[in-house]
Amino acid sequence: MGLNVDLSYAFLPGQEARFSAYLDKAALARRLLMEGQGPGPDCRGWLSLPFTIPETDIARLEEAGRKIRSDSEVLVVIGIGGSYLGARAALSFLGASHPEFHRPGAPLVLFAGLSLCSDDLAELIDFIKDRSFSLAVVSKSGSTTEPAIAFRILKGVLEEKYGLREAARRVYVITDSKKGILKAIADYEGYDVYAIPDDIGGRYSVLTPVGLLPMAAAGVDIRAMLRGAKDALLSGKTLPPAENPSLRYAAYRQLMAGEGKRIEIFATFSPSHRHLGEWWKQLFGESEGKEHGGLFPAPVVFTTELHSIGQYIQEGSRTMFETFLLAASPRRQLSIPVEAANLDGLNFLAGKPLSFVNRQAFRATAAAHFDGGTPNLSIVFDRIDEYHFGYLVGFFEFSCAVSGFIQGVNPFDQPGVEAYKNNLFALIGKPGYEKRSRELFERLGREER
Amino acid sequence: MGLNVDLSYAFLPGQEARFSAYLDKAALARRLLMEGQGPGPDCRGWLSLPFTIPETDIARLEEAGRKIRSDSEVLVVIGIGGSYLGARAALSFLGASHPEFHRPGAPLVLFAGLSLCSDDLAELIDFIKDRSFSLAVVSKSGSTTEPAIAFRILKGVLEEKYGLREAARRVYVITDSKKGILKAIADYEGYDVYAIPDDIGGRYSVLTPVGLLPMAAAGVDIRAMLRGAKDALLSGKTLPPAENPSLRYAAYRQLMAGEGKRIEIFATFSPSHRHLGEWWKQLFGESEGKEHGGLFPAPVVFTTELHSIGQYIQEGSRTMFETFLLAASPRRQLSIPVEAANLDGLNFLAGKPLSFVNRQAFRATAAAHFDGGTPNLSIVFDRIDEYHFGYLVGFFEFSCAVSGFIQGVNPFDQPGVEAYKNNLFALIGKPGYEKRSRELFERLGREER
Repeated sequence: MGLNVDLSYAFLPGQEARFSAYLDKAALARRLLMEGQGPGPDCRGWLSLPFTIPETDIARLEEAGRKIRSDSEVLVVIGIGGSYLGARAALSFLGASHPEFHRPGAPLVLFAGLSLCSDDLAELIDFIKDRSFSLAVVSKSGSTTEPAIAFRILKGVLEEKYGLREAARRVYVITDSKKGILKAIADYEGYDVYAIPDDIGGRYSVLTPVGLLPMAAAGVDIRAMLRGAKDALLSGKTLPPAENPSLRYAAYRQLMAGEGKRIEIFATFSPSHRHLGEWWKQLFGESEGKEHGGLFPAPVVFTTELHSIGQYIQEGSRTMFETFLLAASPRRQLSIPVEAANLDGLNFLAGKPLSFVNRQAFRATAAAHFDGGTPNLSIVFDRIDEYHFGYLVGFFEFSCAVSGFIQGVNPFDQPGVEAYKNNLFALIGKPGYEKRSRELFERLGREER
Repeated sequence: MGLNVDLSYAFLPGQEARFSAYLDKAALARRLLMEGQGPGPDCRGWLSLPFTIPETDIARLEEAGRKIRSDSEVLVVIGIGGSYLGARAALSFLGASHPEFHRPGAPLVLFAGLSLCSDDLAELIDFIKDRSFSLAVVSKSGSTTEPAIAFRILKGVLEEKYGLREAARRVYVITDSKKGILKAIADYEGYDVYAIPDDIGGRYSVLTPVGLLPMAAAGVDIRAMLRGAKDALLSGKTLPPAENPSLRYAAYRQLMAGEGKRIEIFATFSPSHRHLGEWWKQLFGESEGKEHGGLFPAPVVFTTELHSIGQYIQEGSRTMFETFLLAASPRRQLSIPVEAANLDGLNFLAGKPLSFVNRQAFRATAAAHFDGGTPNLSIVFDRIDEYHFGYLVGFFEFSCAVSGFIQGVNPFDQPGVEAYKNNLFALIGKPGYEKRSRELFERLGREER
């Protein structure tokens, strides 16, 4: 149970010797993290969450999930960034890469409020209006533009379909426990509210109601997921550095950054793990992209993208390393059939499982890219199930905090996101942003509609 | 009609003066390209294709499309890399970001053979087996592992459902006109064959039957698309450099590379343009990622990813520039409704179209990222329709060839993809690769299944 970090192709000549110094730094970073001595001491709730989450909270999430399954063909999750990436990653990891193939008896979970594209939202409304549906609104403050607008529009669709009273029973609000616009709306309308803990930031929130409520609705075993996260965090906290997957991964990333690498390619080997890559991208990109440093996080799906970005990795600018993520076995086996005529010449594979070929593709790639000058690390986990999704979450979160500490940044804040948010508020004329509006209108010109 | 390349936020101090030297290089590169003096003179078929494609070829594709619409709820396109990226980009651009919402009266187009994941393929088989379906197999040689295996498996499903005779009427083969395994299979089985021209490589092939057959099946107006490509190529070929969108884009990219940038972020503003970004990624990554150079291509969707990678772009390593792609207007308008209680405080936006907010987000981002030290270029196209998809294809293909020539590489080959392919053939025991198999087994160990 769990995962393995393999460094067989990790080092170009001379690098292995320098790795142990980074393991020492990782051990120190872990101590700072555990003792609350590093930056962001108030943002470490994710470290204890799976150990301390009350049984009553889990039971309440499961109960909401049962209600949604009983009365909704579709659950629309409204959120952006950390408010949707974890849930989408989990549902795709456990369910399917094709969103239209969802679990029998469970609602189709769709995501809204993650762009400002009217085509996307109009299409979603067409799809849900003749189906039974509920809304889960996820936003710590309630003031983020994309989900706030989507909620205003979808609330209207819901109320028109069901009337005010029944509509209010179909809205699940996941937000701050005390303050913020969304909390105020929920209190006014009488919506069911689930609290996001104060000490857990957006990108670390997948195992709070942010991720767990949509998962519970989709029929995911959230208890197994929490067990996996607990085991991963325990191993991160206690194993000695040389045997500690999280510390090894964190140390390796920072070694590569120290050796001048600028891009980390994160390659999974299944289309249904693509969204896990997007979750990983936010976790590391937002934690470390600071002070003009940090590795640029680039998730890809192999072997798919070996036929698009493969050429670049093999022979392009030597500015990257790779992290591979592979399941030791798939959820379902398919054998390659024998064909009497053998016109395609594939009978040499007849009877072998497709997963054998996928695994050889992983080995072929690791060797070819290493030979081309791109070192790589592999994370192989045992099975595709709830436990291992939770395990991967705990593993990556622990790795990320340690890695950020080695880099010397606060891995829990995101000051740079404000620049765009403030410009947007100013350009759309939000009350309170008049001064910045005047500056930007002068510079960019004013647009009315 | 067409598009505009905007350089308002393109230059940090001093860079604009150096841009004109790159425009001169672009003009020279264009001359080499047009005269067939540069590398890859035999791979320029895409330059003339929309001007010379015979009416009978178009009519035949449309006829196949009508047949598929009449007898299939699902069309499964089997292909990888350039064999699927263009069609998927077009269908998503024109259709929908949610694959399950497809055009009424048209089949759902699904893609297979683009990974070795058995979960993905098993799920697809579950979905199609109780529906009417056809297969389009796309592979120049027929020997690429992923689509070859998927075709063997799906051919079995099709023949079991329909019997040999009817199954043969439901397979559309897009391959080399004379040679290769797939051509031989098609001749043996009596499949309908559509030729991929010899002088057009995979990543430039979207406007050949590779892309056009799936699009015709989905009810796309392929004639309008070819008109758009023709106009874009004509403007690339004839407009003077300073007014030429393709030359300006190519020159700007190479200026940025010359200034030390290593990553090009390609940001669209609609989830349904995500797959266009994936097509762009292959086009530029595979064309330029050579000789340890080239810009790393990183497509993103905004505003979605402003809440994941936005922090990095604002404050991370200063190693990138951005290219924005935005439609001047969406396909569908949605207005933000007024709400009497105004609990969310959004009434200041009431009556405005959502596209207004999306456009301000684009302007907010361009300014904020520029202020943070990330220069950017914007491509604004007029409308989301077939004509403009074709226009964008012509624009990017012409830009890419010119950009590759400035860089001094052959933008039409992909020698680095072979390293992985050969390792894979050796590891799975393909006849003819025995020597490499022995080498790799010695180094990596042998796995049987």
